[in-house]
Amino acid sequence: MNACSRTIVARMDSPVALIPQLAAHIVAAGGKRLRPLLTLAAARMCGYAGGERHVRLAACVEFIHTATLLHDDVVDESRLRRGMASANAVFDNKAPVLVGDFMFTRAFQLMIEDGSLHVLRILCDAAATIAEGEVLQLVTQHDLTTTEERYLDVVRGKTAALFSAAAQVGAVVAGRPVTEEDALASYGHNLGIAFQLVDDALDYAADEAVLGKSVGDDFREGKITLPVLIAYQKGNGDERRFWRRTLEEGEHNEQDLAHAMQLLVQHAAIDETLSRAASFVHEAQLALGVFPPSALRQALADVASYTIKRVH
Amino acid sequence: MNACSRTIVARMDSPVALIPQLAAHIVAAGGKRLRPLLTLAAARMCGYAGGERHVRLAACVEFIHTATLLHDDVVDESRLRRGMASANAVFDNKAPVLVGDFMFTRAFQLMIEDGSLHVLRILCDAAATIAEGEVLQLVTQHDLTTTEERYLDVVRGKTAALFSAAAQVGAVVAGRPVTEEDALASYGHNLGIAFQLVDDALDYAADEAVLGKSVGDDFREGKITLPVLIAYQKGNGDERRFWRRTLEEGEHNEQDLAHAMQLLVQHAAIDETLSRAASFVHEAQLALGVFPPSALRQALADVASYTIKRVH
Repeated sequence: MNACSRTIVARMDSPVALIPQLAAHIVAAGGKRLRPLLTLAAARMCGYAGGERHVRLAACVEFIHTATLLHDDVVDESRLRRGMASANAVFDNKAPVLVGDFMFTRAFQLMIEDGSLHVLRILCDAAATIAEGEVLQLVTQHDLTTTEERYLDVVRGKTAALFSAAAQVGAVVAGRPVTEEDALASYGHNLGIAFQLVDDALDYAADEAVLGKSVGDDFREGKITLPVLIAYQKGNGDERRFWRRTLEEGEHNEQDLAHAMQLLVQHAAIDETLSRAASFVHEAQLALGVFPPSALRQALADVASYTIKRVH
Repeated sequence: MNACSRTIVARMDSPVALIPQLAAHIVAAGGKRLRPLLTLAAARMCGYAGGERHVRLAACVEFIHTATLLHDDVVDESRLRRGMASANAVFDNKAPVLVGDFMFTRAFQLMIEDGSLHVLRILCDAAATIAEGEVLQLVTQHDLTTTEERYLDVVRGKTAALFSAAAQVGAVVAGRPVTEEDALASYGHNLGIAFQLVDDALDYAADEAVLGKSVGDDFREGKITLPVLIAYQKGNGDERRFWRRTLEEGEHNEQDLAHAMQLLVQHAAIDETLSRAASFVHEAQLALGVFPPSALRQALADVASYTIKRVH
């Protein structure tokens, strides 16, 4: 992970000073670096020992993730990211759009240096799926007729695709057979869905200081997430009117977030979301079954368990 | 060009309907398709006859260009693009950021299908240079101490890099030696600079209906372009105060654009910009000298001449 961080810092450099400056702002904020960790751990579990490819590709995964964060924050008009002012709050909207593009191209330059068309295909397809998922999220915003299946499509795109690709690449650099690539892709995919479900629950349940971003962001932005869909479906007429006013029409008053949180508790919507997340974690762990037991397999299984534990 | 247009339409499809919808908005508006034309003409001039690679890569060049246009318009808050309402004016800022990302990944998917790491490197490096140029443009905005050299750095990045890569790729698909690759890269590079210089002149000199975008956009946005740098350098104290008020401090009144245009005429700043453009066109045409005379070499030379003729 240290080598990966060094690669990230070295490769975000540019003669245009604003680029490393803005990149440093988001990279310094840290974040969990969960996605590059998947690449590194998967490569090691698969017995990769041929050099530094996994480090470079892990950095590349984090670059793609960072680029999407920069663009997301512009789209969502977020003010907080990783517990600090988001890049768009500090630099306005312009620089984050362009620096996001730059980081995206840096990710591809790293992959091209790596030289594997197979890796390029996996990560590029993931990037395309992320963009589709983000657009789909925009389309479902403010729309309470969104089905759970469509909500899951958003999650598969915006989150699961990169988790899946990050893990799969570990098998590729180690030259493992396609069954193992698929197993790691499935592990990452299910882990990514679980991760996003927990994130969506935390938006209504967490402590801002712990979460590192504003609680209630999804609510204010009218994002349709699973906790809300559950509460809406179980709600009576008054409650449904409340959700429509706040999420569809975007009319908010000061007590609304507290009331929304209370409705979610009342209908056990947070618990139900977390229990769905737990079943995706279980799927992720099952997918690891094709690999022989090892300390690294255990570590990957533990990462999945940790995803749902961060709630408490 | 028809095959290239068909590829563009086919490959901007997605199950997420807003993507082809927004893409169609900008692609339907047309534009000159100058960059893909360079790839196609260069490939043919180099004797490429091996299939459809040049068509796919030309589409890919246009995808990269379209992605940057979508992001530019968000950054510039432009209301007009190619004579029609710009995507951000119709769809707000959110969708164009994300659909730009999608088009960008589509471009890379097309290159990965093509399978040449050399082509990937050329176009990815161009994309990185574009992003750097755009960020540099942001940094020089509102800054009349910008030197001409720095202005040219912006132009090399935001415009010349893709022209250069588009032309170079033609030699690569045809399997031509590196001297011919370099010659086409140099042709595209110089042509791109000339093109941008003319564009910057037109922003103060053109008819809105002919230009297809608002006249005076650069002025209102405080963009520092060569016509302005020339007039500022030649200006007296009053004039310099005028430029500082309008471009640096962004204070505008209704007569300012007309006054700016008058100052540019008075100091022959438009003519001087166009004469610089003409010398870059000349450089571009000289670079074609390594190729034997042919109808396609003449066509490429004519494209360069046309660049400066579109003013009148």
